[in-house]
Amino acid sequence: MIVNVLLFPQFETLDVFGPVEIFGKLPDCRILYYSESGGLIGNSDGVQINTQKIELVEEDKLDILFIPGGLGTRQEVNSLNLIQILKHLGQKSQYVLTVCTGSALLSKTGLLDGLKATSNKRSFEWVKGCNNEVEWIGSARWVVDGKYYTSSGISAGIDMTLGFVADIYGRELAEQIAKRIEYGWNSNKGIDDFAV
Amino acid sequence: MIVNVLLFPQFETLDVFGPVEIFGKLPDCRILYYSESGGLIGNSDGVQINTQKIELVEEDKLDILFIPGGLGTRQEVNSLNLIQILKHLGQKSQYVLTVCTGSALLSKTGLLDGLKATSNKRSFEWVKGCNNEVEWIGSARWVVDGKYYTSSGISAGIDMTLGFVADIYGRELAEQIAKRIEYGWNSNKGIDDFAV
Repeated sequence: MIVNVLLFPQFETLDVFGPVEIFGKLPDCRILYYSESGGLIGNSDGVQINTQKIELVEEDKLDILFIPGGLGTRQEVNSLNLIQILKHLGQKSQYVLTVCTGSALLSKTGLLDGLKATSNKRSFEWVKGCNNEVEWIGSARWVVDGKYYTSSGISAGIDMTLGFVADIYGRELAEQIAKRIEYGWNSNKGIDDFAV
Repeated sequence: MIVNVLLFPQFETLDVFGPVEIFGKLPDCRILYYSESGGLIGNSDGVQINTQKIELVEEDKLDILFIPGGLGTRQEVNSLNLIQILKHLGQKSQYVLTVCTGSALLSKTGLLDGLKATSNKRSFEWVKGCNNEVEWIGSARWVVDGKYYTSSGISAGIDMTLGFVADIYGRELAEQIAKRIEYGWNSNKGIDDFAV
């Protein structure tokens, strides 16, 4: 299982590294980091992550496309080049997972049109404005529609990724990983304490 | 407030980036990343973080020293050079926070001798063996003893860092940040669902 993580300047730290912590506990998982420009990609938490140029994604390894949110999405939704690349990769990937406003960015590709999705609740109005062809769900820890997994804000990505593991590998492994990382998993995607 | 984060090969991803997510939401916080060698530091989640050499830590900015855990600590507890540096920085820092087996590494400096501390529950026997002068607490989400904050495994670092914010900046800010990152904070450091 290959996870292709998209990064961009001003990504939200925990959006990325909560899910990465879970993926990294899968027996057969490799996590690769990409960005439009390649090289070090940073944010206001002082984090600088090494990435490859997204054109280098291997087309025969499109298992999971992972898109975080963060302030940077406000810029990236206007990047026609990135949206075009994401549309291509999203179509070809077996699964596409987003956290927080990552779903706003994904929605710009049109791939979520007519599908259910969710996002960060603090930015929900802005998210809805990005694409009103999506059926945005205001109360959900995460939403699954076909191959698309979209989560609420920031820490919800951890719950969603455990939910993804439960769906694909079985609930036992998801619970084992939650226990191993000493995490109190909110395993019911419909329970949303931060609903709009 | 300056947070000086120590990284080493095979650090645990969420140990670092859960707390970083919280620190980054403080109004006046700058987060800096250091390692023994400087340069890119990686782990098995494929993360590669840019760091400075730890000798470059500014001695007049030793507000918080932050030490994560991870498999790499099994090597680092034997690095006399690193332990010596950590002892010096730990003594001079206003606060020292560790997550998971980061407390085992810190314990090697002797700074925790006679103090209460906790750690990852899966590795607890190994941790205790690192220094039996520490009063290791087997059931605690996190432990505070003077300026030393030590947390249980991996995701416990998020709860501890919110607890640190509550202690230093007030509970209201900690709750605001928890809400902003849509996180169900376990705010009682004595409640430990993963106790030994």
